[in-house]
Amino acid sequence: MLMTAKEYMESLRRLKLNLYLLGEKVENWVDNPIIRPSVNAVAMTYKLAHESQSEALATADSVLTGKKVNKFNALFQSTDDLVQKVKLQRLLGQRTACCFQRCVGMDGINAVYSTTYEIDQEHGTEYHHRFREWLNYVQENDLSISGAMTDVKGNRGVAPSEQADRDMFVHVVERRSDGITIRGAKAHQTGAANSHEMLIMPTLRMREADKDYAVSCAIPTDAEGVTLIYGRQSCDTRKLEEGDIDVGNYNFGGQEVLVILDDVFVPWDRVFMCGEIDFSIMLVERFAAYHRQSYGGCKAGIGDVLIGAASSMADYNGVRQAAHIRDKLGEMIHLAETIHACGLACSYEGWPTMAGNYQANTLLANVCKLNVTRFPYELCRLAEDIAGGLLVTTPSEKDFRHPVIGKYIEKYLRGIPEVPTEARYRMLTLIHAMSFGLVAPSYRTESMHGAGSPQAQKIMIERETDMEHKQELARSIAGIDERENVLA
Amino acid sequence: MLMTAKEYMESLRRLKLNLYLLGEKVENWVDNPIIRPSVNAVAMTYKLAHESQSEALATADSVLTGKKVNKFNALFQSTDDLVQKVKLQRLLGQRTACCFQRCVGMDGINAVYSTTYEIDQEHGTEYHHRFREWLNYVQENDLSISGAMTDVKGNRGVAPSEQADRDMFVHVVERRSDGITIRGAKAHQTGAANSHEMLIMPTLRMREADKDYAVSCAIPTDAEGVTLIYGRQSCDTRKLEEGDIDVGNYNFGGQEVLVILDDVFVPWDRVFMCGEIDFSIMLVERFAAYHRQSYGGCKAGIGDVLIGAASSMADYNGVRQAAHIRDKLGEMIHLAETIHACGLACSYEGWPTMAGNYQANTLLANVCKLNVTRFPYELCRLAEDIAGGLLVTTPSEKDFRHPVIGKYIEKYLRGIPEVPTEARYRMLTLIHAMSFGLVAPSYRTESMHGAGSPQAQKIMIERETDMEHKQELARSIAGIDERENVLA
Amino acid sequence: MLMTAKEYMESLRRLKLNLYLLGEKVENWVDNPIIRPSVNAVAMTYKLAHESQSEALATADSVLTGKKVNKFNALFQSTDDLVQKVKLQRLLGQRTACCFQRCVGMDGINAVYSTTYEIDQEHGTEYHHRFREWLNYVQENDLSISGAMTDVKGNRGVAPSEQADRDMFVHVVERRSDGITIRGAKAHQTGAANSHEMLIMPTLRMREADKDYAVSCAIPTDAEGVTLIYGRQSCDTRKLEEGDIDVGNYNFGGQEVLVILDDVFVPWDRVFMCGEIDFSIMLVERFAAYHRQSYGGCKAGIGDVLIGAASSMADYNGVRQAAHIRDKLGEMIHLAETIHACGLACSYEGWPTMAGNYQANTLLANVCKLNVTRFPYELCRLAEDIAGGLLVTTPSEKDFRHPVIGKYIEKYLRGIPEVPTEARYRMLTLIHAMSFGLVAPSYRTESMHGAGSPQAQKIMIERETDMEHKQELARSIAGIDERENVLA
Amino acid sequence: MLMTAKEYMESLRRLKLNLYLLGEKVENWVDNPIIRPSVNAVAMTYKLAHESQSEALATADSVLTGKKVNKFNALFQSTDDLVQKVKLQRLLGQRTACCFQRCVGMDGINAVYSTTYEIDQEHGTEYHHRFREWLNYVQENDLSISGAMTDVKGNRGVAPSEQADRDMFVHVVERRSDGITIRGAKAHQTGAANSHEMLIMPTLRMREADKDYAVSCAIPTDAEGVTLIYGRQSCDTRKLEEGDIDVGNYNFGGQEVLVILDDVFVPWDRVFMCGEIDFSIMLVERFAAYHRQSYGGCKAGIGDVLIGAASSMADYNGVRQAAHIRDKLGEMIHLAETIHACGLACSYEGWPTMAGNYQANTLLANVCKLNVTRFPYELCRLAEDIAGGLLVTTPSEKDFRHPVIGKYIEKYLRGIPEVPTEARYRMLTLIHAMSFGLVAPSYRTESMHGAGSPQAQKIMIERETDMEHKQELARSIAGIDERENVLA
Repeated sequence: MLMTAKEYMESLRRLKLNLYLLGEKVENWVDNPIIRPSVNAVAMTYKLAHESQSEALATADSVLTGKKVNKFNALFQSTDDLVQKVKLQRLLGQRTACCFQRCVGMDGINAVYSTTYEIDQEHGTEYHHRFREWLNYVQENDLSISGAMTDVKGNRGVAPSEQADRDMFVHVVERRSDGITIRGAKAHQTGAANSHEMLIMPTLRMREADKDYAVSCAIPTDAEGVTLIYGRQSCDTRKLEEGDIDVGNYNFGGQEVLVILDDVFVPWDRVFMCGEIDFSIMLVERFAAYHRQSYGGCKAGIGDVLIGAASSMADYNGVRQAAHIRDKLGEMIHLAETIHACGLACSYEGWPTMAGNYQANTLLANVCKLNVTRFPYELCRLAEDIAGGLLVTTPSEKDFRHPVIGKYIEKYLRGIPEVPTEARYRMLTLIHAMSFGLVAPSYRTESMHGAGSPQAQKIMIERETDMEHKQELARSIAGIDERENVLA
Repeated sequence: MLMTAKEYMESLRRLKLNLYLLGEKVENWVDNPIIRPSVNAVAMTYKLAHESQSEALATADSVLTGKKVNKFNALFQSTDDLVQKVKLQRLLGQRTACCFQRCVGMDGINAVYSTTYEIDQEHGTEYHHRFREWLNYVQENDLSISGAMTDVKGNRGVAPSEQADRDMFVHVVERRSDGITIRGAKAHQTGAANSHEMLIMPTLRMREADKDYAVSCAIPTDAEGVTLIYGRQSCDTRKLEEGDIDVGNYNFGGQEVLVILDDVFVPWDRVFMCGEIDFSIMLVERFAAYHRQSYGGCKAGIGDVLIGAASSMADYNGVRQAAHIRDKLGEMIHLAETIHACGLACSYEGWPTMAGNYQANTLLANVCKLNVTRFPYELCRLAEDIAGGLLVTTPSEKDFRHPVIGKYIEKYLRGIPEVPTEARYRMLTLIHAMSFGLVAPSYRTESMHGAGSPQAQKIMIERETDMEHKQELARSIAGIDERENVLA
Repeated sequence: MLMTAKEYMESLRRLKLNLYLLGEKVENWVDNPIIRPSVNAVAMTYKLAHESQSEALATADSVLTGKKVNKFNALFQSTDDLVQKVKLQRLLGQRTACCFQRCVGMDGINAVYSTTYEIDQEHGTEYHHRFREWLNYVQENDLSISGAMTDVKGNRGVAPSEQADRDMFVHVVERRSDGITIRGAKAHQTGAANSHEMLIMPTLRMREADKDYAVSCAIPTDAEGVTLIYGRQSCDTRKLEEGDIDVGNYNFGGQEVLVILDDVFVPWDRVFMCGEIDFSIMLVERFAAYHRQSYGGCKAGIGDVLIGAASSMADYNGVRQAAHIRDKLGEMIHLAETIHACGLACSYEGWPTMAGNYQANTLLANVCKLNVTRFPYELCRLAEDIAGGLLVTTPSEKDFRHPVIGKYIEKYLRGIPEVPTEARYRMLTLIHAMSFGLVAPSYRTESMHGAGSPQAQKIMIERETDMEHKQELARSIAGIDERENVLA
Repeated sequence: MLMTAKEYMESLRRLKLNLYLLGEKVENWVDNPIIRPSVNAVAMTYKLAHESQSEALATADSVLTGKKVNKFNALFQSTDDLVQKVKLQRLLGQRTACCFQRCVGMDGINAVYSTTYEIDQEHGTEYHHRFREWLNYVQENDLSISGAMTDVKGNRGVAPSEQADRDMFVHVVERRSDGITIRGAKAHQTGAANSHEMLIMPTLRMREADKDYAVSCAIPTDAEGVTLIYGRQSCDTRKLEEGDIDVGNYNFGGQEVLVILDDVFVPWDRVFMCGEIDFSIMLVERFAAYHRQSYGGCKAGIGDVLIGAASSMADYNGVRQAAHIRDKLGEMIHLAETIHACGLACSYEGWPTMAGNYQANTLLANVCKLNVTRFPYELCRLAEDIAGGLLVTTPSEKDFRHPVIGKYIEKYLRGIPEVPTEARYRMLTLIHAMSFGLVAPSYRTESMHGAGSPQAQKIMIERETDMEHKQELARSIAGIDERENVLA
């Protein structure tokens, strides 16, 4: 079953979330003006599955059942599948100009799928079977899944089991015959309040003493013991104001949630790892590779919107043909396409896991993400350069609509005569939203920290390289080892 | 007379501003929660003049009267005066973490002073005398002056007199026996609503047809015909919320105003240029050199706060000693000090004008500013890297104070056990305010566009270089021209 | 027929080149110590076709005959073929640490193949048939082809037909019944003296008046009227010295030749374009896209050697585990892999021409190359940082072998005791060769200017982007155009 | 006595150096074509002392005697003296386009002067008096001093006294009644063979066990036991060829020497530190601050030549007015001036030592140098971009002079018709010399490693910053500490 965007929204209403926002419990999250744009962004992942031009990208045939399912719940069956993933993500970035939130689930599903297979091979467990059953349920109901990996971590210098407060990483507090109870909190949970289920995963390498922390399982977002606390984002309350201009991106937005798991019970058939510390890091790294690949799609797509906006502002200011403007726009395109090229390359160079689904190339996925921690910032800086200082000095929409002073703004904030002042004003607020405001976290901070901070990528890049081989090449050319005999 | 911060605030209350904010006329601007932080920031320029440690930097002896005046209303009498200026600006940046708004006036005063002198020499006018009279009044009353240069500009590709709407640049609409009437609008007027007077200046080179646009004069901010429209800035309405954390920088903030001049009358004794098109560009470039110098002070100081905040976050997260963190903090310091070094160098290398006050070195002031259009962005990026994703996912202060969920936040958002969660939360919101929020325009956009956009600096750098001399050096070394005879 | 490396060298001896080097005519180029390393580098392209591990990459089945041919003479039949091309190039870069020179021919062959097809479609000519005949001859004899595009250009601001000296671009000086006569010069002809044939191509867009300049044809490198003048490269005469250390890369090197065409006759069956000005730019751009793709292979491979060398030096100095060294090595890997990722992406995203062979994606190929104009320089800078100042202060090999002072060098230039001084010395000279010396042009200048200078890529990137679509995306999100209805 | 350039050269001839170059003992170093350009470069420091325009910069009144001495042998008496130093260095960089070698001595003299003063204060020794005596001798005879700090270091991970070979750092092997005997080697000794004396200094912080390594003293360059081994530099043997073009910078060049100290005896009156391990690091850091300041002069001056050369090439190619060329030249100027601004700032912000001479500001000197490890590389890259690929493909001067092929080169390597081919050729080889060739080590590697590698600067920058103060600023603004009361 493929839900429509509308059906998806209705399905959200049926949840019983324990959700807080700005110090108040939210009863109707779908229609809450602060939350709604984020719901819309997820809804686009449902909508595209029904559009003829995007259907091929946005759906897949399930490996489990052969039925057509949403791409975000599918297993990657080939490198082409991986490529389609990043192309879909670019398309969604272009259509929403923000984070559409559903990738963490998709990437988590694929990572848990292959890891559980290998745990079972090693330990004789039955996690993989359980996971397939759960995934079948997810696909059949076209659910939105929130991948839940990042713990709150406390003191970053200390292992989970050595924290002063042992709850700083999600862990098993009780093992019962019918299931387990878990406690802790997951931070920065993208789209958690827009999801039906959370897929819990550990966040780092575990050692013997951390056994209780090596846990993966699925829980409904409205399970008993779950509290969702909505994260503030820049300019969030502009969504509560009248008008639709100052918010910049009226329709769409990201969502980050602090998820508290206060002794949540999970039945065994939803537990996919429980104590197998030797597989914790495999799960983390497989997820990370997928998710670092993902940014090669969405951040290029969001970049497209920013480039289009900057180019439009240059038009409206009458300077589109100035050499330095063209040079800066060219640079912006170059940076966005470099990101996408890395996203494509790590997809095409993917590899099959033992379980049969495909992983993105680990080295190149990390290279992709490391570029993403840099280039969107430069894209923002260039957009800000082109847009002009008005970006942070425009009056409010209320001033613009004001009977006395509105005419001044109409008159004086016009650029070239051919373009209405309002169009210029709207384009400015869009750029503002992307570089400072509501969706800036989607483009800047998420690019930095999503799927791991830059240092994590640096470490993986170093590790994934065959440095010994590179040294051999150098030694041979240098004549330290025997030189290659060209004529041999 | 040197006003105290308190006297300054009281003096503001006596103005009769025609000021609009968020679609409403503001009657009490000093106590308006959105405006007040910007008043506080200006007030710091008064306060430091009374503090024993900073008095030497923050005051000067007037050239006009010999009396002690606020540095912001003083003429620069030496290169040391220029150096003290940037050191004062760094100090103020450190104490406010934002734009303290009074530099445009200081820089404008000095530019108009020397330019009027030279106009009079050339044209036999009496502008310089008038200006000294006005400046004496300003110094005596310790007024805050808003330098008003940037016009709204309309179509950037077209000269003032060729705009479809001829009001896109401020111009003289009537010359009378007792004075002139001007019309137009000045955009991005930093601190205009916190100032007693505006010093109007033209914004670019004028040609014969632009004669009416070559106008400089002084007007009270509450003169008849003046309308001030307060610019929106990121997260501005957080200042209206309860609590003091989410706003990040509770005490201080910048201020940008769109100033409408709807047929404002200016008596002749306040007119400092009227039609002398040949001196318009001199005034613009002298102001620009001063103001590009200024950024070598304030942006280094604001950077100091950001560096301190990032370093604190690293402490609170338990990673302060990690090599990559130390490297990033070292890089941040390096960038901030490079900016300051350029600010110092262009000051020390200043030169005396014909009128006797000192100008910053034009080439180096432009070099300073061009670095400022780049490095604060990288400082923000690095701070964001160090701070972590929580920067854009923290719950609200209301959640933190909430009887039910507050304890979760208290528990789970703690870093190392030794530091209270609230301290970590406050440090995060400060970094957020500086990179995304309320004072981000002070640190990012103003660095980009204040005192002219990067392309303006590139052009000046090219022009101020003696390229012919450099080519001669190359030709001699290359042996195209005669080589230097070392033994001669 | 696939020649071995040895057979290739013998075949070179049979040529009758009119070749000058350092002011003297060269009779035995194959054994000339300055030239030989460049011959060896080309020979590697023959050698790999016979090695079991590389054969699949280094050969292809001819479209013309179905026979196995060297990849460098093959037409690309699929995107996979394009991918294999860049992987082969990376492998060759790793094995030679320099330019192996044969790519220009390969890229020229593919560009002329598809362009002649389309000329014939448009003009009813028979160029494509002729070209296939010639290509068949090339494949059958496994010849090495030098692609000859870059004219000497004279005044860059002026069209070919408007140059003061009309010979600044190669052009037809006579049309006869049996063929044409051409005159001019091609600059920077990579590997020309190691090639059997040159494939002449025009270098830019032609206008009506430039008709004589729109010429493509094939000529033997030893044709009557051809003079080859060998370009100097950094440290070239070190190859004439005793010893094998100071040269850094003893076995391999690049080759750049100034080719003079002084009224060279070309029979009609070797002429592939003659006056079709409307197709000149197509040929240029198709070649450029291929060749910009190529750099995504070779420069990554050369980078691998440099990374291995830098890493080895860190070992030898005892600092391999220092955090800042690891960070710099990680950055070097990241940059090299970003280049390769772009090379892969533009290959995978290739497209079939009307003639049936495949082109690399134009936008991404240009993105690839623009990164190549930047990253190898940073790789060199980082390698130089890691290597230490000894890079440019080592004594000579003669000093090292000297009976009196050799022992001092042996003693004092040792790093960690476990590594012989000579190994450290050799590794230093390799890095020197790559950053300053013999193969530095292969890694630096060629990265900058090969396949067109950075500005050429910037222009293509701007042109290949659908900016109107990006603006539409922005207008829709901003609400200037109708916003997307998520629920529709 | 101020020697003329000619007298300086004659004085060199009177030395009895034990000097090796390319495996042979050199008897006449002054006229050796490989060495002579480096002698010329030092000679310029003598010449400028006699030129009316530069005399004020190039000389000073001795603190010891009041007599006029060469600036390179003078003590810095004020911050203005420090400023004049960097301005002199810029001038010399402009006139030589390479390292003029005498700064290490000047900086060493000033560092030893103040450090010996403080050693004596602490330890009751008489080093300072001895040093003044020696300095008086140096000034009186206008000697050229080679500062000798950098040891060969062996395993960088291990202290001097723990090296497998204890001679990897210069150390005292015998203490006698009349003096000491030292052993070891100093690497990268800039201009050592052009100097009369060497001023030996330790290279790092010493611990108790390293007592023998804490040694500073002066020795003649031709003392018994001293062997000088000339370092190879890129393209060095081009100086042995006929003609003057290919060498690029015919007149001037740098010089780096490996100095072996094989049991060299030093009488006590030339010993300035011997075992005072607590002052080793002071000496190192004071020297480093001076020398990091120095680069803010010379590297800006060398940059001026490179900028002039690139600009000339753009002229000769007919593209000087292209927007992207102007942008790149503007960027080059910006980078060179940023370096100089930092050099000026650390000079103006200098401080007096206890001994009375002035030190450059430590923090800003390190900031200056860290920029120098980056910007000259980008300047080279941009020059290479502007120059074109011909940079590494030009034929030799011999080809250019050749009766048969010379006319081809004359014809085809011409740019715009107004400029002779030879001028274009000469300008190309100059850029080549600066980016790849003979003087590239002066501009690239020395910028990287001279006065310490970038990591050394990063560490000092971190250490010299008052991070606690920055954290206090942040805590106050954030409201963690008490907020500033603006009205107080």
